[in-house]
Amino acid sequence: MGKAEEIINQLKNLDATVTRLGHIAALLEWDQETYMPEGAVEERASQSALMVGLHHEKIVDARWENLFSELGYDGSANPEGFDDVGTAFLRESYKRWKKQTRVPRNLVENLARETSLAQAAWAGARKADKFSAFAPNLESIIGLEKEYAAAIADNSDADAYDTLLDEYEPGASAGEISTVFDGLAEGLRILMDKIRSGNAPETGFLEKPYDITRQDAFGQRIQNFMGYDIHRGRLDLSAHPFTTTLGPDDVRVTTRYDEKLVLSGLFSNIHEAGHGLYEQGIGQNLRNTLLADGTSLGIHESQSRFWENTVGRSMAFWDRWFDDFKNLFPENLANVDVRSFYRAVNSVQPSLIRVEADEVTYSFHIIIRFRLEQALISGDLKVADLPGAWNDAYRDLLGITSLNDADGCLQDVHWSVGLFGYFPTYALGNLYAAQFTRAMEKDLGPIPALLGSDRADAILNWLRENIHVHGRVYSPGDLCRRVTGESLDSVYFLDYLNGKYAGVYGF
Amino acid sequence: MGKAEEIINQLKNLDATVTRLGHIAALLEWDQETYMPEGAVEERASQSALMVGLHHEKIVDARWENLFSELGYDGSANPEGFDDVGTAFLRESYKRWKKQTRVPRNLVENLARETSLAQAAWAGARKADKFSAFAPNLESIIGLEKEYAAAIADNSDADAYDTLLDEYEPGASAGEISTVFDGLAEGLRILMDKIRSGNAPETGFLEKPYDITRQDAFGQRIQNFMGYDIHRGRLDLSAHPFTTTLGPDDVRVTTRYDEKLVLSGLFSNIHEAGHGLYEQGIGQNLRNTLLADGTSLGIHESQSRFWENTVGRSMAFWDRWFDDFKNLFPENLANVDVRSFYRAVNSVQPSLIRVEADEVTYSFHIIIRFRLEQALISGDLKVADLPGAWNDAYRDLLGITSLNDADGCLQDVHWSVGLFGYFPTYALGNLYAAQFTRAMEKDLGPIPALLGSDRADAILNWLRENIHVHGRVYSPGDLCRRVTGESLDSVYFLDYLNGKYAGVYGF
Repeated sequence: MGKAEEIINQLKNLDATVTRLGHIAALLEWDQETYMPEGAVEERASQSALMVGLHHEKIVDARWENLFSELGYDGSANPEGFDDVGTAFLRESYKRWKKQTRVPRNLVENLARETSLAQAAWAGARKADKFSAFAPNLESIIGLEKEYAAAIADNSDADAYDTLLDEYEPGASAGEISTVFDGLAEGLRILMDKIRSGNAPETGFLEKPYDITRQDAFGQRIQNFMGYDIHRGRLDLSAHPFTTTLGPDDVRVTTRYDEKLVLSGLFSNIHEAGHGLYEQGIGQNLRNTLLADGTSLGIHESQSRFWENTVGRSMAFWDRWFDDFKNLFPENLANVDVRSFYRAVNSVQPSLIRVEADEVTYSFHIIIRFRLEQALISGDLKVADLPGAWNDAYRDLLGITSLNDADGCLQDVHWSVGLFGYFPTYALGNLYAAQFTRAMEKDLGPIPALLGSDRADAILNWLRENIHVHGRVYSPGDLCRRVTGESLDSVYFLDYLNGKYAGVYGF
Repeated sequence: MGKAEEIINQLKNLDATVTRLGHIAALLEWDQETYMPEGAVEERASQSALMVGLHHEKIVDARWENLFSELGYDGSANPEGFDDVGTAFLRESYKRWKKQTRVPRNLVENLARETSLAQAAWAGARKADKFSAFAPNLESIIGLEKEYAAAIADNSDADAYDTLLDEYEPGASAGEISTVFDGLAEGLRILMDKIRSGNAPETGFLEKPYDITRQDAFGQRIQNFMGYDIHRGRLDLSAHPFTTTLGPDDVRVTTRYDEKLVLSGLFSNIHEAGHGLYEQGIGQNLRNTLLADGTSLGIHESQSRFWENTVGRSMAFWDRWFDDFKNLFPENLANVDVRSFYRAVNSVQPSLIRVEADEVTYSFHIIIRFRLEQALISGDLKVADLPGAWNDAYRDLLGITSLNDADGCLQDVHWSVGLFGYFPTYALGNLYAAQFTRAMEKDLGPIPALLGSDRADAILNWLRENIHVHGRVYSPGDLCRRVTGESLDSVYFLDYLNGKYAGVYGF
């Protein structure tokens, strides 16, 4: 074994410990959201904090610095003699080590304390519909986020928002995203005009009560159809659906059911299983390394949205599954045909609340947040002016405004926990999904023809080979170019929406 | 704050981390036995090993030695100026630190590897009914256990078995236990002669199928009756029932149900809730210290056995609950009255398998293992001679012998995982329970009078005040003397059995 190889092995051993501590921390959180008794809440916070501390301790361990230095690696150029995986391992582990060693301990503690206070303040302000009760906390968190960005940045003149964005979408910049989002907003505005002039589908039968046990049975069948491996995962209930990785063969999803919201439960099942498939499909050669993860939140979201919208809200999907669904709920669907059901599933309605938005209007909610959070970080927008700016943006893009802050700028938890730069990844997911779909259809032919059987294996295999197996080996930008031959472009998503909604709304 | 106080606070901070790592490790195990997907087995072993390593790392941290030394404490005498809790904290943390620093790393690794191999060999040997296939592994484990005992012992002339016993029953010695067990064996032999001459109860109605959902509903009602706090705990299913502590307000129990074994499920519910009550009742002043635990396995078992046998198999308990039980299972119990049911629940039958034994014959199984494992450790018994010695002992004490090793000396997993000195604690639990019961009745009057209402609060409060709240502050011997005024004596258990079974068997 050569010296470089020996050093890499030592680095991989250090990394396996860090990765496993992350998985154990994920179990603490999964348990908290699913089965933990209520009395344990306070102590669980201390247990999780302990795991965060140990995780950090193992990331900044002095051996990392010594080994990088022995290898002569300083993160500035691709090292010689390594394949893509080796190169990515060094790049990502160096980046993580450097970032965590750069953050001063008191900043970590301040952020932990202030976000904890801010979450409580946000919840109270939202309940009381009083933005001013949250404003000082938001002010303080914006200050700390800028401090954090300055601490971890490679160059002192780096843009703070770009630095924050890089945490969730490595390599992306606000400038590029703005260009993409501007085109998207314009395209969506034109599409919405057509939809408003079209024929709205009837949706009354979706508002009837649907038995939860049967919802669950159907959801599990669809997860199996997608190829989600229940022997390496689980489906449980939680207040907010999520996907979490507790180990290379332990990727769990959760959902929630509401008798009166049958689509909400079903599309949560599909969405989370889409995330789960990504994690279950990561290459065995990346097991227990930091590369065994989604390469960005945007790419992760592309996988969940692809299954949820491109597959789960397609005519071909319901051609395959509507009879089974109708057999489970004959009392609600006796007089409904598959075409009416498909149209109802794709009903479009501008609304105030992001998490309730349809596939078309969803991106507007994200574009608004992206523009506002950039302005908050740059200082162009004062915190006190946020509610007004929020309402102006909703009026401009969605044509509606909220009468209160609770359903306006207080609706999301993200900013209170310090997540600046996170929102755009939700919309990037839609765009990546459409661009990947185009590449998939070049290889496999039209997707509708692949949805007729009991398992969507051809689709899953394509996603595995082209996306999942690579984990974090390629940056999201590089992955997009490898898979589709070009950089991210909103045209594919707009083409997809225009084609589909012309059919749904008959324009 | 004085200097000693400051040092104690630093020690307590170190200890809180160790304790929390133990709780997190317990979550990994709980999840493995309840909800973990099958694919995750191999990786979970690595995650648990990592937690064991971190736990050890934090126990042998150099700060412990420095702080003990600053305090001038060397474990040899009670330090001045501390109350019982402070004294116990120093005694136990020093003992743990010293023990773990004494065990060489290669011995830990050898034990881990050999017990892992031995468990597989034991399972194979048991399946093939071939003791010789397990004998070399047992030989090797006995050697390592003796090596381990020599490593951790305070004196080089300490008896190896006593040292091992101290891990589970601190302060106990094989000599004292032998004296107690000899008296117990003699008393049980006389009692068994009377039982054989008495009238055996009819038990056919217990062998009918009992619906599992209703078994579960009844089990939960009884756990509530006992005072088990479900807001600080959970009840789940697992292959082998157990109780585990994931935090001061998170004490979970498991059970299993079999349609054809209704009593097995019910008494598992009661037994594990008995353990759970002990852990839930530990004093708030001991939170997240190493004193927040049962003081020994024998005392722990006294709590589970008290509820299972003294309460759950008593006439007064069934006077309170039989009508409810019968209402759940009218198809099986239509013609059964409470007295017949009570007698059936207490049927005595010598059998080969420990885990199926009744309250009277159970201790024989333990006495046999205690004598044999002492002889194996001392070398008086050769591994090759174990099957013969086992059968001789069963013939002598229970009057039956197994035709095969699978139901003989291969029936228990304990020795294959290195648990020598563990078995006697099961029987000590019965003895402690009876002696504690006598003390409780002196304070509260006869127990039957306390079982008539919907909650057994008076009993639980007494156990809390006298036993639970103290955690590991007092050694099991000291606790027994505090609670009962004397050392452990088998006479109380024998009195209890004689009185009860005279009624059941009419002698």
